[in-house]
Amino acid sequence: MKKISWILAKTSLEANVGAAARAIKTMGSERLLLAAPKNPLAQEHPEAIALSSGADDVLKAAKVFSSVSEACGSFGWVFGLTSRDREFGPPAISLPEAAQLAATASSRGEKVAFLFGAERTGLENEDFSSCTHRVWIDANPDYPSLNLAQAVMVCAYEMRRAMATLEESNDVGHQSTKVERASQAAIESAMDHWKEGLIAVGYLDPDHPKKLMERIRALFDRAGLQKEEVDLIRGIAKQMILKK
Amino acid sequence: MKKISWILAKTSLEANVGAAARAIKTMGSERLLLAAPKNPLAQEHPEAIALSSGADDVLKAAKVFSSVSEACGSFGWVFGLTSRDREFGPPAISLPEAAQLAATASSRGEKVAFLFGAERTGLENEDFSSCTHRVWIDANPDYPSLNLAQAVMVCAYEMRRAMATLEESNDVGHQSTKVERASQAAIESAMDHWKEGLIAVGYLDPDHPKKLMERIRALFDRAGLQKEEVDLIRGIAKQMILKK
Repeated sequence: MKKISWILAKTSLEANVGAAARAIKTMGSERLLLAAPKNPLAQEHPEAIALSSGADDVLKAAKVFSSVSEACGSFGWVFGLTSRDREFGPPAISLPEAAQLAATASSRGEKVAFLFGAERTGLENEDFSSCTHRVWIDANPDYPSLNLAQAVMVCAYEMRRAMATLEESNDVGHQSTKVERASQAAIESAMDHWKEGLIAVGYLDPDHPKKLMERIRALFDRAGLQKEEVDLIRGIAKQMILKK
Repeated sequence: MKKISWILAKTSLEANVGAAARAIKTMGSERLLLAAPKNPLAQEHPEAIALSSGADDVLKAAKVFSSVSEACGSFGWVFGLTSRDREFGPPAISLPEAAQLAATASSRGEKVAFLFGAERTGLENEDFSSCTHRVWIDANPDYPSLNLAQAVMVCAYEMRRAMATLEESNDVGHQSTKVERASQAAIESAMDHWKEGLIAVGYLDPDHPKKLMERIRALFDRAGLQKEEVDLIRGIAKQMILKK
């Protein structure tokens, strides 16, 4: 649980940064990341310190990044919380499914983060390009009213629960196979390379991209690209460009 | 989920009554009971109304009882939340276990309630005599810092989750959202098309194919190709061949 990271994107209220620190510490985590917070000094704000209660150590140690993509760059798994249905983007899974994936990945030593959008707007379309998965919390469809700190609390609770379940099943002696997942940064960059390749062969019209890259990305995200597969797909892009 | 009741015992702060109303409504419940609240008119207090957000209907409809035993009287199952270990009292179970029991009992038409103690003190020894079970939320042993509204939120989340799991297991003919999967024949044929395209752009050497097609196929198989994605990848192959 300590190895799981929690990224707050573009948070407006300092109080919520503090409450999130408290929620993750309560469930046994300690890594808090702030991506482009409205107040870059949010973690020193009195409201944040007050709401963090005894989790001021987690709050103080939070790392600040200037953008969401920068904050997510080093993670192999980024679970972005959303309540909204979107046609494109990374695959959507339920929170229990996400937590199970996250627990397994983390136990293999892979880097895992949960990403939460701003209070009013949630994650924006551009932020989802930093995510491997979209995650929804099942709630009352007529009143899905979780605030940011509550969403963090529920996710951290489910994450701790999944970790405990995994430990139990590992006690039986289960071992999974080792494959290295590609990082989000590597996938982003491979997608840029592909875009160039698809333009070169005349498949993609840069003036009318028609969501082609989003659809390809969704397909690769569902597969869960491995490190050496990124090299493979970059190799294809390179040849497409050479044949221009 | 609507049939589950949520009892707050001896709550001090009106704001927490409002926040609890919001939490249970968010997860699809509506029955809130106040047992011996410090302020018997808590539900009309401005702080309660403010914190209930859009759940003022649940807040307004809350029933007030003069004691914990009176509030719990009509229930066949009362799950009392506690963080403390007690030597005596009803059997202690984890929250996921409690929610599973509660879901099964409720589906049989039995009356189920979760009971939460006062902010500072939690449930008192005498209150446990009204409980059929004590329930603990697994948390960081060094910092188990859930406030009342967060505990209600986590319990309501777990309760909704258990209800959904129960429904799924009852629903043998469960249907997931409909996306048309590509047929194996369509994928085979698209792979032949890709092979031709990759040879055309000079990526694949037909004399030394190096398992490239097998690796690409494995990646696509993991994604589980949809029918329209096969058209998309065939379109790419077609352009690679045209550029020869």
